[in-house]
Amino acid sequence: MRKVLIIGAGGVANVVVHKCCQNPEVFEEICIASRTKSKCDAMKAVLDGGKTKITTAQIDADDTEALIELINAYKPDMVLNVALPYQDLTIMDACLATGVHYLDTANYEPLDIPKFEYKWQWAYREKFEKAGLTAILGSGFDPGVTGVFSAYAMKHYFDEIHTIDILDANAGDHGYPFATNFNPEINIREITAKGRYWEQGEWIETEPLEIKRVYNFPQIGDKDMYLLYHEELESLAQNIKGLKKIRFFMTFSEKYITHLNVLENVGMTSIKPIMYEGMEIQPLQFLKAVLPDPASLGPRTKGKTNIGCIFTGTKDGQPKTYYVYNVCDHEACYTEVGSQAISYTTGVPAMIGAKLLLEGKWKKPGVYNVEEMDPDPFMEELNKQGLPWVEDFNPALVD
Amino acid sequence: MRKVLIIGAGGVANVVVHKCCQNPEVFEEICIASRTKSKCDAMKAVLDGGKTKITTAQIDADDTEALIELINAYKPDMVLNVALPYQDLTIMDACLATGVHYLDTANYEPLDIPKFEYKWQWAYREKFEKAGLTAILGSGFDPGVTGVFSAYAMKHYFDEIHTIDILDANAGDHGYPFATNFNPEINIREITAKGRYWEQGEWIETEPLEIKRVYNFPQIGDKDMYLLYHEELESLAQNIKGLKKIRFFMTFSEKYITHLNVLENVGMTSIKPIMYEGMEIQPLQFLKAVLPDPASLGPRTKGKTNIGCIFTGTKDGQPKTYYVYNVCDHEACYTEVGSQAISYTTGVPAMIGAKLLLEGKWKKPGVYNVEEMDPDPFMEELNKQGLPWVEDFNPALVD
Repeated sequence: MRKVLIIGAGGVANVVVHKCCQNPEVFEEICIASRTKSKCDAMKAVLDGGKTKITTAQIDADDTEALIELINAYKPDMVLNVALPYQDLTIMDACLATGVHYLDTANYEPLDIPKFEYKWQWAYREKFEKAGLTAILGSGFDPGVTGVFSAYAMKHYFDEIHTIDILDANAGDHGYPFATNFNPEINIREITAKGRYWEQGEWIETEPLEIKRVYNFPQIGDKDMYLLYHEELESLAQNIKGLKKIRFFMTFSEKYITHLNVLENVGMTSIKPIMYEGMEIQPLQFLKAVLPDPASLGPRTKGKTNIGCIFTGTKDGQPKTYYVYNVCDHEACYTEVGSQAISYTTGVPAMIGAKLLLEGKWKKPGVYNVEEMDPDPFMEELNKQGLPWVEDFNPALVD
Repeated sequence: MRKVLIIGAGGVANVVVHKCCQNPEVFEEICIASRTKSKCDAMKAVLDGGKTKITTAQIDADDTEALIELINAYKPDMVLNVALPYQDLTIMDACLATGVHYLDTANYEPLDIPKFEYKWQWAYREKFEKAGLTAILGSGFDPGVTGVFSAYAMKHYFDEIHTIDILDANAGDHGYPFATNFNPEINIREITAKGRYWEQGEWIETEPLEIKRVYNFPQIGDKDMYLLYHEELESLAQNIKGLKKIRFFMTFSEKYITHLNVLENVGMTSIKPIMYEGMEIQPLQFLKAVLPDPASLGPRTKGKTNIGCIFTGTKDGQPKTYYVYNVCDHEACYTEVGSQAISYTTGVPAMIGAKLLLEGKWKKPGVYNVEEMDPDPFMEELNKQGLPWVEDFNPALVD
């Protein structure tokens, strides 16, 4: 009887739960747990009655003892963590204490230091290895599929990969003049943070949005994209041997950037409270209350995402180029699982990673980023589970 | 003993009070009255000890009975109204009931219909005429000086004026990424309202900011300006006989418009309350609390305003062009009276109108717009009282 404890009840968790239920031969039982049990119950209500047995639980994922208690009570084979990145370590601790495998989609960050870094989770390597447990880090799309694409390129098409450009385009249109897909704080941080890329063994920092390119994305068209730092750069720079340069680009429309800039200028994105009629209010929290609820965007978002990697390097002494990407349609995702493509492209790979772990194909004691695993079964699952990929051996390169 | 009751205690009132005290031979006694008496007392504290005797009073200018009581107690020769435009009619009623003259700077608008129109005040013509009282409407800069400029052009330079373009440029810089000079509600309304101009006896409506021109303003330089509706268009279209076309342009920077547009897009300018932690809050009111206090802008604003009128028409059968304008420096105004040029250019003409009324030069029973009075003494005062004007008989025209 294979049982998975899924922690989290947001948009990504919703996709994970749907996709687990589409694969009941592996996901025989799942328990959905989150701080707000009613959200878990709502998901169960939608999917109950299929072959996968669903239960729900209340859990404070910041509380290691409570996690241990829940895991001991439910006895899952693994924990699939789609809670907040702040909670990765407490959940990993609970997995070690109870002897169950672990998988997540985004790396740990301390609440007080807004900084992506793998060091905290990589420090668990020896503990997981000694316990005979597998921990898979970052099995979403980016990070996640982008690492699998890299491992696949390395395994089948290159002797040496010299450059990787990860291109993340979202051409979704929700019809509002402005709204943010996820948490506005995270969106704002993305465009106001300094950029960073890796070249010849060095990290090179850029000003926020300093490096802009226009790329003609297949099935989407020309989009402005900006160089950002993204967490998979750290692991890929280490794991792809011989790599000389790796960058990450994300698309933002001029309109989107203008809106965020103005809101920042006037002070509406500040977390420093102001006094308003005797009440302390954070402008950012008030702004969130005024903006459309991110959850309301799903049913109205049209258009596609295109996320992929462009590799250059050599094969048999000849220069070689390879672009592999997935195109995902917001409306099709919403019709299938009730979430749009941003959640879908993260949730499906999380389910696939868990499936491969449970099937023993991605099981090895220790803590691993996805590119350290065999990419072939994952690539096969992507085509089956709703994220088919396209290859192009002569793509336009990013200068 | 000439006594003036000044109603209002904002930035314009502050200028009026300073300028009255600079002309104590006419303004022998003034009483400053507003809802918040402490504001009146603060002005008195700054200017007390000069030749003008200053008293203060508390008044609710929405309350006609209270106004009558105050006027009967103080016995002024006239009321100088620099309160809110919503209060013009109650104050005019009180003047009629008590037999004192009246002057204001902006035409009445009902609280619930944001629409400038003279019809409500023009309806008082007969009453004031019969009572032997003078009411002067719109004696600020625009309306006000722009009407005086028009009357002056007609009297001295033209047989027929065919077109008037009123150009209002503010090149002030307060150093904030965004702030509004006055009430943000009024600023937002200005750029989101439809434009309107008058041509060949017809009003022609435009989309908000639809008509944009770039004009090279003397002492300021090139500025983007946009066609708006402004209240003096209504009276000048009637009072300047033979007029074929009249338009009003105001400068706005692209940055200013972008900021207001974004704030409107995201819903931060809405007056419809949202629920925030159990409290009803109007987004616009919260935005006002986050933005810099308009009162804080005065001491930090640098740069100049340029407001004037370009006339075309004929004299002695020949085509003729005439541009008359005032340039006002924000910092110089602040040094002189503690308010910047926006308040200064409105407050000085209000004092001049009152001075001419008290001196009998602008006294005639009825309700009048300033262009119906003799412009010569007013033009003379402008040069003396801090708003000197410049003439140009060969200006660039606005197409």
